[in-house]
Amino acid sequence: MDLRIDAPRLLSRLEELGRIGSTGDGGCARLALTDEDREGRDLVVTWMRDLGLDVQVDAIGNVVALREGREPGPPVMCGSHIDTVATGGRYDGNLGVLSGLEVLETLASAGVVPRRAMAVAFFTDEEGARFAPDMLGSLVYAGGMSVEEAYDLVGIDGARLGEELARIGYLGSLPCPGLVPHAYVELHIEQGPVLEAHGDVIGAVTGVQGISWQEVRFSGQFNHAGTTPMSYRHDAGFAAASVAVAARAIARELGGHQVATVGKLDLRPDLVNVVAGRATLTVDLRNTDGKLLAEAEGRMTAEIERIASEEQVSVERRQLARFDPVEFDPRIVDLVEKTAREHGLTVRRLPSGAGHDAQMLARMCPSGMVFVPSAGGISHNPAEFTSSEHIEAGANVLLQVLLQLADGELAA
Amino acid sequence: MDLRIDAPRLLSRLEELGRIGSTGDGGCARLALTDEDREGRDLVVTWMRDLGLDVQVDAIGNVVALREGREPGPPVMCGSHIDTVATGGRYDGNLGVLSGLEVLETLASAGVVPRRAMAVAFFTDEEGARFAPDMLGSLVYAGGMSVEEAYDLVGIDGARLGEELARIGYLGSLPCPGLVPHAYVELHIEQGPVLEAHGDVIGAVTGVQGISWQEVRFSGQFNHAGTTPMSYRHDAGFAAASVAVAARAIARELGGHQVATVGKLDLRPDLVNVVAGRATLTVDLRNTDGKLLAEAEGRMTAEIERIASEEQVSVERRQLARFDPVEFDPRIVDLVEKTAREHGLTVRRLPSGAGHDAQMLARMCPSGMVFVPSAGGISHNPAEFTSSEHIEAGANVLLQVLLQLADGELAA
Repeated sequence: MDLRIDAPRLLSRLEELGRIGSTGDGGCARLALTDEDREGRDLVVTWMRDLGLDVQVDAIGNVVALREGREPGPPVMCGSHIDTVATGGRYDGNLGVLSGLEVLETLASAGVVPRRAMAVAFFTDEEGARFAPDMLGSLVYAGGMSVEEAYDLVGIDGARLGEELARIGYLGSLPCPGLVPHAYVELHIEQGPVLEAHGDVIGAVTGVQGISWQEVRFSGQFNHAGTTPMSYRHDAGFAAASVAVAARAIARELGGHQVATVGKLDLRPDLVNVVAGRATLTVDLRNTDGKLLAEAEGRMTAEIERIASEEQVSVERRQLARFDPVEFDPRIVDLVEKTAREHGLTVRRLPSGAGHDAQMLARMCPSGMVFVPSAGGISHNPAEFTSSEHIEAGANVLLQVLLQLADGELAA
Repeated sequence: MDLRIDAPRLLSRLEELGRIGSTGDGGCARLALTDEDREGRDLVVTWMRDLGLDVQVDAIGNVVALREGREPGPPVMCGSHIDTVATGGRYDGNLGVLSGLEVLETLASAGVVPRRAMAVAFFTDEEGARFAPDMLGSLVYAGGMSVEEAYDLVGIDGARLGEELARIGYLGSLPCPGLVPHAYVELHIEQGPVLEAHGDVIGAVTGVQGISWQEVRFSGQFNHAGTTPMSYRHDAGFAAASVAVAARAIARELGGHQVATVGKLDLRPDLVNVVAGRATLTVDLRNTDGKLLAEAEGRMTAEIERIASEEQVSVERRQLARFDPVEFDPRIVDLVEKTAREHGLTVRRLPSGAGHDAQMLARMCPSGMVFVPSAGGISHNPAEFTSSEHIEAGANVLLQVLLQLADGELAA
């Protein structure tokens, strides 16, 4: 069976969805549960209904569109999200949802009905850009947070999640946690530079890095930059800069998949001629290996304490986020890799550095992901781009992987 | 002759002037040429006139109040400024002006008329907080900038200096450059921690540090903090932090009076999970020795280039300010030191880390400064404080130094 997805149809839908919330520079702003999100949801739901799928909305606004199989039982599910960050691109999330829809339409056009049911879903508020935490819809779907707790979340604009869900008409009746799929596979752009750098077309995603975010605040003494000799200083800005330098050193020492980033750093009063009295920074540590991540955290803590002690500044630390690493089902990772190779595509096993709905579904069922390259590694940006060849290749791999899962059995 | 200033009168005037533009927390906001500055000026001018002084305003709004001597000729001048930064204290500038007034009132009450005329001045816009550059009034007084150029300066609020000067009624008729004094001595708070740390009451100021300000901007590539391996990064934030750490190292290596500060540092986009694509920081280098300051600048440049090259980010640099060090007249430095000792006060020779009007007057005539301690080294802050004992001691040293200059001769 040599089924192929219809690339022009998929690209045209990506284009049409990208027009909703367009920022005019190639980018999209469809923050979760805004009017733009509703408009995007309505469009995708229309496409789902046009295809004759059974579209259902759950209590957290996740939308699941089902196509019956030859036999009863849980569906093979694919999907992703269609909300974006404020400076989002057209591919992040959308690609996984519209490719899933494309797979179902390809099967329908060819009159193929696999053994198992199949479903395509989009999950609410994956980005977390309006309502923290991110991956919220899939978290609630998988039973990681109660619906009631989620309803009470307050957005950056002061809105309450439950009210916004009702307001845009996506407070559905399906209960959470949701139906447990037979398996879940998500196609997504890599959002990083690795595939492009190696000239590979498909990523067989082995898992999602564990993540540790902390905010560090140093309080020293603000002082005149001219009149205060070096030995009298308690420079919160110097302490913060030292942490950024130490974070890089820790990542270098641990090597492997360890990354460390100081992306946010604010000095007070932030003046050329004043030694900063206060500095607030964030440290983002990630590793695919839970033990190594804990090791990085331990070393970072020791460095922060050493720096504070040497500069004689006080330090407060606050954990902003902490997720253990997730490993995808090795059978699905193998299946993605094998399928890509069989289709003559170059493929690379790699972990995901970003969080995805698939890591929440992995709590419920065998799960995995397919990555396609991001040009220049750029994402969360209007310049986000994945070539039509790579989109087509990724959607075809998704099609074949889903078909094998829908017709075959995963080895024990 | 054992003349002493009247400390309660001086303190009460500091208190009264401090109420104008009060920020309610012990601080003052009287930015140059605002309504608050006018109100402060009017009060001080009233006190000057009440004392029978000949008050004159020059073309840049500097106010000079003259008391005749027994002989004709240029006056011995003291003074400072009464404008403040937005978060100013009650002592910076004001102390020098009101102590000068107090000296003249003490002489008048005692019926003492020295050989030379004496003058107390306050100079326009010393802080530069509304109209850059700082020390503007004394710069124009000393002939370092033309009146016309100064009139065209535009403030942070868009106002033109010449118009503001006329608006508040302080566009005077005396020409600039102004009258060359016989000598100039300025009493000022130290604005640093050195006197307090050593338990000294009086600072005999040897000169003003040379200053080099630059803005450094790194442009790298912003990237996802999770999906971008360390080896693919061009992290502008890491480069900026490395400069702050290098600046500290350079100050340590050069030692002596070298100081180095990164007080301002901004990352873009400044998010926890994004590798910064752009970072802008300032480097403030100061040294009392012009050759060592140039050495520090050279080392800093080499470090900035090395860091940019290693991180593969581009760098733009912009000089924000550059002043060579100023040495005060050694005869006046000696006179301050000797006078303090004779009055049983502990005294320390030290350079000023901040700029002062005295460094502009030093272009015209033998000049010097007297420092008194700043509690905790704090200045440009509502918490700025100098004890009444130290104020009294400083004003008495100013009195005696001015009297000796007015009656005696400086050695050749």
